[in-house]
Amino acid sequence: MIKLGVIGTGRIGKVHIEGIAQLQNASVKTAADPFMNEQTAEWAKSMGVEHTTGDYREILADPEIDGVLICSSTDTHSPISLEAIKAGKHVFCEKPIDHDVKKIKEVIQALKGTKIRYQVGFNRRFDHNFEALQKAVAAGRIGKPEIIKITSRDPEPPSIDYVKVSGGMFLDMTIHDFDMVRFLAGCDAEEIYVQSANLVDPKIGEAGDVDTAVITLKMENGAIAVIDNSRRAAYGYDQRAEVFGSLGMAAVSNDSDSSLVISGGEGVTGEKPQFFFLERYMEAYKKEIRAFVEAIENDRETPLDVYDGLKPVLMGLAADRSRREHRPVRIEEISKEEGIG
Amino acid sequence: MIKLGVIGTGRIGKVHIEGIAQLQNASVKTAADPFMNEQTAEWAKSMGVEHTTGDYREILADPEIDGVLICSSTDTHSPISLEAIKAGKHVFCEKPIDHDVKKIKEVIQALKGTKIRYQVGFNRRFDHNFEALQKAVAAGRIGKPEIIKITSRDPEPPSIDYVKVSGGMFLDMTIHDFDMVRFLAGCDAEEIYVQSANLVDPKIGEAGDVDTAVITLKMENGAIAVIDNSRRAAYGYDQRAEVFGSLGMAAVSNDSDSSLVISGGEGVTGEKPQFFFLERYMEAYKKEIRAFVEAIENDRETPLDVYDGLKPVLMGLAADRSRREHRPVRIEEISKEEGIG
Amino acid sequence: MIKLGVIGTGRIGKVHIEGIAQLQNASVKTAADPFMNEQTAEWAKSMGVEHTTGDYREILADPEIDGVLICSSTDTHSPISLEAIKAGKHVFCEKPIDHDVKKIKEVIQALKGTKIRYQVGFNRRFDHNFEALQKAVAAGRIGKPEIIKITSRDPEPPSIDYVKVSGGMFLDMTIHDFDMVRFLAGCDAEEIYVQSANLVDPKIGEAGDVDTAVITLKMENGAIAVIDNSRRAAYGYDQRAEVFGSLGMAAVSNDSDSSLVISGGEGVTGEKPQFFFLERYMEAYKKEIRAFVEAIENDRETPLDVYDGLKPVLMGLAADRSRREHRPVRIEEISKEEGIG
Amino acid sequence: MIKLGVIGTGRIGKVHIEGIAQLQNASVKTAADPFMNEQTAEWAKSMGVEHTTGDYREILADPEIDGVLICSSTDTHSPISLEAIKAGKHVFCEKPIDHDVKKIKEVIQALKGTKIRYQVGFNRRFDHNFEALQKAVAAGRIGKPEIIKITSRDPEPPSIDYVKVSGGMFLDMTIHDFDMVRFLAGCDAEEIYVQSANLVDPKIGEAGDVDTAVITLKMENGAIAVIDNSRRAAYGYDQRAEVFGSLGMAAVSNDSDSSLVISGGEGVTGEKPQFFFLERYMEAYKKEIRAFVEAIENDRETPLDVYDGLKPVLMGLAADRSRREHRPVRIEEISKEEGIG
Repeated sequence: MIKLGVIGTGRIGKVHIEGIAQLQNASVKTAADPFMNEQTAEWAKSMGVEHTTGDYREILADPEIDGVLICSSTDTHSPISLEAIKAGKHVFCEKPIDHDVKKIKEVIQALKGTKIRYQVGFNRRFDHNFEALQKAVAAGRIGKPEIIKITSRDPEPPSIDYVKVSGGMFLDMTIHDFDMVRFLAGCDAEEIYVQSANLVDPKIGEAGDVDTAVITLKMENGAIAVIDNSRRAAYGYDQRAEVFGSLGMAAVSNDSDSSLVISGGEGVTGEKPQFFFLERYMEAYKKEIRAFVEAIENDRETPLDVYDGLKPVLMGLAADRSRREHRPVRIEEISKEEGIG
Repeated sequence: MIKLGVIGTGRIGKVHIEGIAQLQNASVKTAADPFMNEQTAEWAKSMGVEHTTGDYREILADPEIDGVLICSSTDTHSPISLEAIKAGKHVFCEKPIDHDVKKIKEVIQALKGTKIRYQVGFNRRFDHNFEALQKAVAAGRIGKPEIIKITSRDPEPPSIDYVKVSGGMFLDMTIHDFDMVRFLAGCDAEEIYVQSANLVDPKIGEAGDVDTAVITLKMENGAIAVIDNSRRAAYGYDQRAEVFGSLGMAAVSNDSDSSLVISGGEGVTGEKPQFFFLERYMEAYKKEIRAFVEAIENDRETPLDVYDGLKPVLMGLAADRSRREHRPVRIEEISKEEGIG
Repeated sequence: MIKLGVIGTGRIGKVHIEGIAQLQNASVKTAADPFMNEQTAEWAKSMGVEHTTGDYREILADPEIDGVLICSSTDTHSPISLEAIKAGKHVFCEKPIDHDVKKIKEVIQALKGTKIRYQVGFNRRFDHNFEALQKAVAAGRIGKPEIIKITSRDPEPPSIDYVKVSGGMFLDMTIHDFDMVRFLAGCDAEEIYVQSANLVDPKIGEAGDVDTAVITLKMENGAIAVIDNSRRAAYGYDQRAEVFGSLGMAAVSNDSDSSLVISGGEGVTGEKPQFFFLERYMEAYKKEIRAFVEAIENDRETPLDVYDGLKPVLMGLAADRSRREHRPVRIEEISKEEGIG
Repeated sequence: MIKLGVIGTGRIGKVHIEGIAQLQNASVKTAADPFMNEQTAEWAKSMGVEHTTGDYREILADPEIDGVLICSSTDTHSPISLEAIKAGKHVFCEKPIDHDVKKIKEVIQALKGTKIRYQVGFNRRFDHNFEALQKAVAAGRIGKPEIIKITSRDPEPPSIDYVKVSGGMFLDMTIHDFDMVRFLAGCDAEEIYVQSANLVDPKIGEAGDVDTAVITLKMENGAIAVIDNSRRAAYGYDQRAEVFGSLGMAAVSNDSDSSLVISGGEGVTGEKPQFFFLERYMEAYKKEIRAFVEAIENDRETPLDVYDGLKPVLMGLAADRSRREHRPVRIEEISKEEGIG
């Protein structure tokens, strides 16, 4: 029985607590949140959480706890990672580890020589659709990948306040797609070119960000990838991907609430894609934690280690530079500046 | 070069004239219609028809003409068939040959000992979807057929005047599905049970007919078939079929004008099925005539001979009796009474 | 907090225990099974079950327990229902209550004058697809229902031993579809006609049963319904439905594990329908228990009461008679004989 | 009755002759080809062509002929255009007018002050799918366009001999997509960035060309467009497009020969996209000629004038430069150099 601590009981922390409640080989001993209140504490108890607290250091100090889930605000991911590693806890860290590569390097450094299992929370790899797609590609069903296409559009833009602290669309939203393109291609990107615009809400532009983008990537295996992003899709959360190769094409499309189709005078109408990311990816969130628990239990590598957390950040920085300088940017250019390998 | 005469230049006669215009191995020498007028004559000329007339006997008397298409009103199908056979012409006869089995028997009798090629106009067998379905079944791709389902719904009911002379829904509309079920099963029906209702328009009921039906058939190969009919589908002309067998299922669905799909706040909407049977089956009409011409050219059997014209009429009569007597009716019961087989 | 007892910890009992573990307003106090063993007991404990036993009477005798789930073998459903009602427990009873209408009548009798909430386990009503379909129909989106079609095909036939005690396909398998047709039509059936066959496995025929059927129903609202069943679909568990009405058509199709589609030299291939009914309907099983708990909690009617358990049995008996006597059978004929209504 | 001359009776010339045979308001008086032979002449006759010749100048000299179709080899498009304009004939010219902008400018110059109708053969605009998509976008059904995606993949690469004289993939193949993106966006492109590769056949690379590309475009209306190309799709001719906008998304997908879907042990398999471009776009070829004839008949603008022929060539040149210099290239950069605008 793996004992876990959950740091941060906001939206995503709650999702993970619910997921762990369904596992037979793991339980949450302690959930911590600086804003812990009675309501959350009671809910946590009903989910089998033994103990709640306002101070995550209780978790780190508890010798019974094997691993921690860092679900607190983005700016705390890397410092708490460092503390948790120091305390000898296995770490599941929500994405991104940090927007600052130096801080990720500190985490990498801290992990060296330890037996700590570190997993970063790119949940989409555990989604039934993307998992099936990756498996089909890895199994060679479409031959050698040549063109990879990812469509990733949010149903609605975040608040302008959030936009301002988000690190920009590429590090906040596209970062998931950067991970996905690595997952599907089975290799890293070499170069990125961004064509982006501010079309959804002028306030996003005023905040210095973009909301619409088409991002072209050259992958190390020779494939060309393209990601298209929008911060607002009127029909819901649009999450599709397609891999084209020498023997054919594999593609996955959106999930909807039901298969209901109505044929009437206006046409033949099916349901919209699911709107809310938590609904869309609920099963994926459960599966990523199951994978983390299994990595601890069996003392084996997590499916998404700290380098899988680093690479999409480098890609995000390259994308940002491409946008600003309006030219293709090699990932190497960023890694060298950041003093990476 | 096969020379043809077209008898009847209404809607369907025109379709066939257009189809023949695209053939390289056939042409229409004469088109006849009691209501032939200048406009039609001119149109016919532009379609390469050499000659037009008010009297179809000119066609029968013309030694240059190899075959005739009988596209006149239903009540004339069998008498003109007899005349044409007597005149030594190959015959393409629109469905049904007759509602009266005795008259079909006369046609069968007249054909005996001749070298005349006779084809009946069940156009749907030549439709790209139904043809692909039949081929898949005949090739054994779904194993032994066990359940055959046909959905056949008209976009809107015919006029009440037409309903009154139509012979009833089973002989007028379902007759196509009776042919289709024979085509897909590759054998004849043994027994029919009808559950029908008058739900679309009370005037249809007042005229003694039904407009909605589910018809169950036991086929000679052991498969069970079911046809569902409606005289009015709000979303267009609904023409689907599915064959389920020991190794799987093969199904075909509707054609629409384009593959356009719009995703919006209301859902994900594709186009309706095509509305009009002439539009839906235009290519099938062309292909059936091509097959007729090829049968003449190569002196071989037509794909749909006079017995293929007879059987669906027997099925329609059985269906009608099942409806009136509210019990399953064996086809044999009808054939014996009609002195067949 | 509603306290429940689960009687029978076979496949379906376990599913319900898992479902209840995710509820915040209910828990399983005791799980009983004559074959209770250590392994099951341990599993139950991990699922939050407080106590396990070999004797279900412990549950009935426990004043703390509000309601019971009867998940034991079919022959025990009605006797344990009677005991549970006598003990004042709310009852969730797996389908069917009994194959013998007299015994169902005893349950109805026993419920009279009590405040006991009784729910029968027709899980499919809680499936996301069928629920969406029923809602669309009930909301009038397709107008007045005219033709209802249900396709229900199992992936593989049960063992011959099971077939022999199953009560026949209509009471064992089609019973779900009889419930579904009532759910979708929003009314009862008046008459049933069966065309059935033994095509899948001759041993099923030798056991006196059929494995393939097309069942036509006349509904009280005038609609015609048709169910097609097979005990073996090579491509998985086939669960579809379509309701056609005056304004259009609503249809639901199968669920698959993912939306993966592979385009290659052989065609464009998507995933098969999910194979296993527990996988396919897992969420529905959870939702039906949630509904049962809510009925207890709020002292309101269950969504599927004892009469909803009775009606499909009457339909099954009518279907069986139609099959044996090869004629349409009115439900009234059966109910009168059984002294109902 | 519009009288036409067809110059070049290769594959595409034949398609147009067949199309014209079905028109009531036009006919082919003369078909010319330097390699005219008996077989072609006979075939032409059967298609209603009055006269065949080896010398296209006969067509230009014939005062009865209203317009010509230039279906000869690419290098002759612009010189014959000039001759035809000089001869006062309306011109339908297959794409591209020329790879050399100077020569297109000569055609533009020659047209000035004349009443000649000039149409360039970008057939895809007349395809039922793309036409429906464009209409939906133009009608505002998806709001303001923001992201336009075109997938255009050939089933198999052309011969290396053809590759060498093709002008490169961008001018030979992508040129259709450049036209399509203008059609869908309703405006011109401002800037192009190419990421391309030689993945399909090394011989294509040796010939100095690429066979795989992702091309990003900034459109004048602010939308971002992306085209992905491959010279070889194992599953057929892949021709799709999607326009995403402020109110939703409109998309069109491939046509297949039938709607047949087979569900079996391996999955649920539909037909591949049609393989051959002539089959896929047959109706579009007919419709573009119908539009040309109507433009002549009604003395109105053709739907695709000489500038619509010029712009995609400029885009192709920009794409080529982007590929060679590995940077985004503004269309303006090319036009200025070519002395346009």
